[in-house]
Amino acid sequence: MKPIKQRLLTPGPTVVPERVLEALGKSTLYHRSPKFKEIFLEARKRLKKLFRTEGEVLILTSSGTGAMEAAVTNLFNPGDSAVVVVGGKFGERWKELCETFGVKPIVIEVEWGKSVRLEDIEEALKANSDVKGVLVQICETSTGTIHDVKGIGDLLKNYPDVLLIADGITAYGVYDIPTDEWGIDVGITGSQKALMTPPGLAIISLNEKAQKRLLEVETRSYYFDLKKELKKQQSGQTAYTAGVNLVVALNEALKMIEEEGLENVAKRHERLAQATRAGVRALGLELLSENPANGVTAVLSPKGINGQDIVKIAREKYGITIAGGQEHLKGKIFRLSHMGYVDIFDILTGLEVVEFALYELGYRNFKFGDSVSAAMETYQNL
Amino acid sequence: MKPIKQRLLTPGPTVVPERVLEALGKSTLYHRSPKFKEIFLEARKRLKKLFRTEGEVLILTSSGTGAMEAAVTNLFNPGDSAVVVVGGKFGERWKELCETFGVKPIVIEVEWGKSVRLEDIEEALKANSDVKGVLVQICETSTGTIHDVKGIGDLLKNYPDVLLIADGITAYGVYDIPTDEWGIDVGITGSQKALMTPPGLAIISLNEKAQKRLLEVETRSYYFDLKKELKKQQSGQTAYTAGVNLVVALNEALKMIEEEGLENVAKRHERLAQATRAGVRALGLELLSENPANGVTAVLSPKGINGQDIVKIAREKYGITIAGGQEHLKGKIFRLSHMGYVDIFDILTGLEVVEFALYELGYRNFKFGDSVSAAMETYQNL
Repeated sequence: MKPIKQRLLTPGPTVVPERVLEALGKSTLYHRSPKFKEIFLEARKRLKKLFRTEGEVLILTSSGTGAMEAAVTNLFNPGDSAVVVVGGKFGERWKELCETFGVKPIVIEVEWGKSVRLEDIEEALKANSDVKGVLVQICETSTGTIHDVKGIGDLLKNYPDVLLIADGITAYGVYDIPTDEWGIDVGITGSQKALMTPPGLAIISLNEKAQKRLLEVETRSYYFDLKKELKKQQSGQTAYTAGVNLVVALNEALKMIEEEGLENVAKRHERLAQATRAGVRALGLELLSENPANGVTAVLSPKGINGQDIVKIAREKYGITIAGGQEHLKGKIFRLSHMGYVDIFDILTGLEVVEFALYELGYRNFKFGDSVSAAMETYQNL
Repeated sequence: MKPIKQRLLTPGPTVVPERVLEALGKSTLYHRSPKFKEIFLEARKRLKKLFRTEGEVLILTSSGTGAMEAAVTNLFNPGDSAVVVVGGKFGERWKELCETFGVKPIVIEVEWGKSVRLEDIEEALKANSDVKGVLVQICETSTGTIHDVKGIGDLLKNYPDVLLIADGITAYGVYDIPTDEWGIDVGITGSQKALMTPPGLAIISLNEKAQKRLLEVETRSYYFDLKKELKKQQSGQTAYTAGVNLVVALNEALKMIEEEGLENVAKRHERLAQATRAGVRALGLELLSENPANGVTAVLSPKGINGQDIVKIAREKYGITIAGGQEHLKGKIFRLSHMGYVDIFDILTGLEVVEFALYELGYRNFKFGDSVSAAMETYQNL
């Protein structure tokens, strides 16, 4: 029998709340109208609070990768060096962006699922005096792993010319991240993750140090011209046509985060992540990551079972979309998201469909409900 | 912490699929337009298939109770007698309707949670030669109990003047009910149960025998004039303004039932009901009903625990609306719905919230996940 309903449990796009969909569905505003300007400035103000920054926060009409490209093309001159942490698909993306735009990547390879060691970063900085920035993920989504960005920020206090540029696409709104306090000069996120909005908007923060760097670099992008955007957005305009409906939707989502309270949002993600981990461990499965993130849990498929088959059964037979592995992890892992508009019952649903799929694939090293039991227990006691 | 999302798991209104909401949200049609006429006739045709009747099926703009009133006011003359099965709140409603409109109710009291005995009906019929109809529920929603309407139909083959009038408000679309084959002369349902549409429409079927009776009765209703409706609806009109958007939505919901296949729909409800029963039993709880229905499960609260408190915690702390008991069952039971647009994961969510609530109320005679385990096992093996 075919599933009668569909559920989205992927680490982006994530499920969008009805309130946000309703906002999205309102009549399109003219992007130069006073009404849109007002909403745009509201959204930027809310984003500054979310980022906990005194710096500027810009909204770009693109996916998160657009903001990554903007960082590389606006903050580095050709020939500059950047330390790049590559511990997964999104670390690789930093490297590829550097290569595309003439920035020399000093790559720190990290085994997928492990976190970068601070001493490796320090060594790279010492060995390369021309480094202008460190490019890293707060959470490497492909492996569900946290890097110690706060630690990197502390380290960089001794390197006043080096920008800390952190891809927080699956971290902002999952954690309560004090961008300024951690020394993140440039923080990035996207609309379609913990911000509970459809894809199409990227967000980039720029502290004073980053804004100063902007002036020293001639951007190699036309669309992603951060100097131009900065000037425009301070007055509630955008350089080019903004994704108007998405901005209205994002503003509504940010209101929801405010109402729940950022601390509570972070605490909820923590509880859901811990419940998920307890659940999969109760099935005798192991996590890929040594430092698992609160936004997404990457689980190693049991021996002899292809992770893609779990994903396929979940989607085709049960209507539930979970994520598989990427690149060389394809087939070796599957990923359960607990990011954004998610509660404990969504988590339990994710675990249940994994149980059904594993059972069907012949892994029966558990009793139905074992993962649910462990997850509920963990959730109740946190 | 307050719940971040709301889930509706009540035995009506039930959750409405996105497709149906989209149909509902389309621009309102003029109720005398050719376009609406076309959709109205389509919906009536689909309802005839759902009811498996060669008779007529009328759509009334009212809740299900309106169709019950229409049955009483259009099919009985003042002073007529009707055998009324009263085994719950909705049986009582039949009795109240009879009293309101001058029909003499010959009440068969059935303990709430039990099914009517056929011999009691036969006895009442033998003792009252002037009986013109039997009024019964297929499923008594307040107790989650099935009455043997097929058996009553067989019995009435010997009573050609007696109409079998069956409230199937929580039965049509839960079961595959062959209205004609069972000898149901008048079948009733509402839009907001297994038909997955918001409240506001009632449906009533009339076979030839019932249509003949219409001619012998002078209705005591103006709005619910079934002779008038019958004439109008055969040509795609209604006597008074129809709930246009609701009809468009209902037609879409009926399409979904057709696509899934009525047999599959019934099988799904059977599996979900059995999974629910297995789940609550695994918590050491008992069902109220001796003949539990596939649309809703009524569960006895454990000793010392008020069923209303379970309902309250589920709603206030977890955002999940389940139903309590009605009338004298209030506080003594709670009810889990598995009717309409529901899959196994909804069922498991319902069981999980009951576990959380019971735990909080001090009933800890189980391990978290026990009900889920039993329900998944049952579901997998059906």
